[in-house]
Amino acid sequence: MLIIGERINATRKPIGLAIEKKDGDFIQREAEKQVAAGTNYLDLNAGLHSEKEKDDLLWLIENVQKVTEVPLCLDSANPMALQEGLKNCKKRPMINSINGEEKKIEAFLSLLENYQGEIIALTMDDKGIPETVEQRLRITEKLVKILNEKGIKNEQIYIDPLVQPLSVNQKFGLQFLEAVKQIKATFPKIKTTCGLSNISFGLPQRKAINQAFIILAIEAGLDSAILDPLDKELISSVYTGEALLNQDEYCLKYIKAFREGKI
Amino acid sequence: MLIIGERINATRKPIGLAIEKKDGDFIQREAEKQVAAGTNYLDLNAGLHSEKEKDDLLWLIENVQKVTEVPLCLDSANPMALQEGLKNCKKRPMINSINGEEKKIEAFLSLLENYQGEIIALTMDDKGIPETVEQRLRITEKLVKILNEKGIKNEQIYIDPLVQPLSVNQKFGLQFLEAVKQIKATFPKIKTTCGLSNISFGLPQRKAINQAFIILAIEAGLDSAILDPLDKELISSVYTGEALLNQDEYCLKYIKAFREGKI
Repeated sequence: MLIIGERINATRKPIGLAIEKKDGDFIQREAEKQVAAGTNYLDLNAGLHSEKEKDDLLWLIENVQKVTEVPLCLDSANPMALQEGLKNCKKRPMINSINGEEKKIEAFLSLLENYQGEIIALTMDDKGIPETVEQRLRITEKLVKILNEKGIKNEQIYIDPLVQPLSVNQKFGLQFLEAVKQIKATFPKIKTTCGLSNISFGLPQRKAINQAFIILAIEAGLDSAILDPLDKELISSVYTGEALLNQDEYCLKYIKAFREGKI
Repeated sequence: MLIIGERINATRKPIGLAIEKKDGDFIQREAEKQVAAGTNYLDLNAGLHSEKEKDDLLWLIENVQKVTEVPLCLDSANPMALQEGLKNCKKRPMINSINGEEKKIEAFLSLLENYQGEIIALTMDDKGIPETVEQRLRITEKLVKILNEKGIKNEQIYIDPLVQPLSVNQKFGLQFLEAVKQIKATFPKIKTTCGLSNISFGLPQRKAINQAFIILAIEAGLDSAILDPLDKELISSVYTGEALLNQDEYCLKYIKAFREGKI
């Protein structure tokens, strides 16, 4: 499973502050720690201040690239910021994210034309997050069609079926897992991802729920997750789940992670 | 998921010693602690000293029944010990276990005739523990046939497809899960159980593996497990797995367990 490190996100207080103060050292350390923990991508989110977002994103890209070559995941709903961001990445970044909202996808379309990198697409549209697995599949079909028309291959697409809190509806866990299974069965070349921790919102012992859920998600076929790679117990769950589900030959990755103190 | 508390087992040193010294207080405390942790059955294993096993088992039954009415699970391969044990239980106990070995099952047959309680049956025969899921299913079919002929209904049968260590074969985790699924699909009224911790034998961080595996086992449909109910993290995994898999209405059991300090 690919891990997209979520820590450099302006909605987290210390990151927001570092961006404000232009504390490049702090951002660089956040990048280095996640890389040391084994993250495969570094998500960069420069916040919601639309007037500053482009400049802040470029500043984040510049700082992170000073200390690591791990590919970036540009996390923005602002096509202008993304466009400039893409120009400044040394390696082709992942784009996080598009969705089925008519107006938003229009604005992204020229940006995506023949893009060669990976793109996260959320299963939501103008009606919001759908209630059912079937609606998630319908939105996925629509998004895949639009992306294919722009020259994006299925191999480049990560669908995020959107985890919703168990505290709101006890079926939301199973529903997400079923959505992952059906999306993978319908589009075998498409990959899946998610922001995991939403599942435990509103319940006690959130970390235990997140740890259990990622194991079930690996079983369902989830290819990637946006998470905190410094959460050692969560990372431990990933290695453990992969070993139990025959995705780790001779449990070598598991044993190596143990020896390196990662789990 | 039903929990069968495994702690009163003579192969555990403190229990073996307590049996030897006839330290009834110690056994009673072990029973009380497991009941407080929410165990549904108390497994009683009086050890492998065949000449003493019957008397030791009766002594365990007597002591445990002094402090609790939780049903017992008589864990013995000795039909004589079981026969006397059955007579001395106030509530009908679970029998742990029979298997497909020709000689052993012969000795059990008269004991099982029209038995009204629950029986654990292991998927092994004279050839040992089978390699494949299909062979496990064949042995299950054979055991079910024999038990049905003795008047035992499918509702009374718990099949244990036998967990084997991941360190021996990286497919053993998946194989067990698949066996549970297929047994449940073939015999919808039959229940399944297992001794869980064997999965992690030979690997580091065994507890983390056990915790992850029980979640996958719940997903596969496992009805019961023989485990240490005082292992708070493992019990936490059971509650978490049930909540995530829509087996806990409004997450009420999860929240109650949290309030009671069980997870």
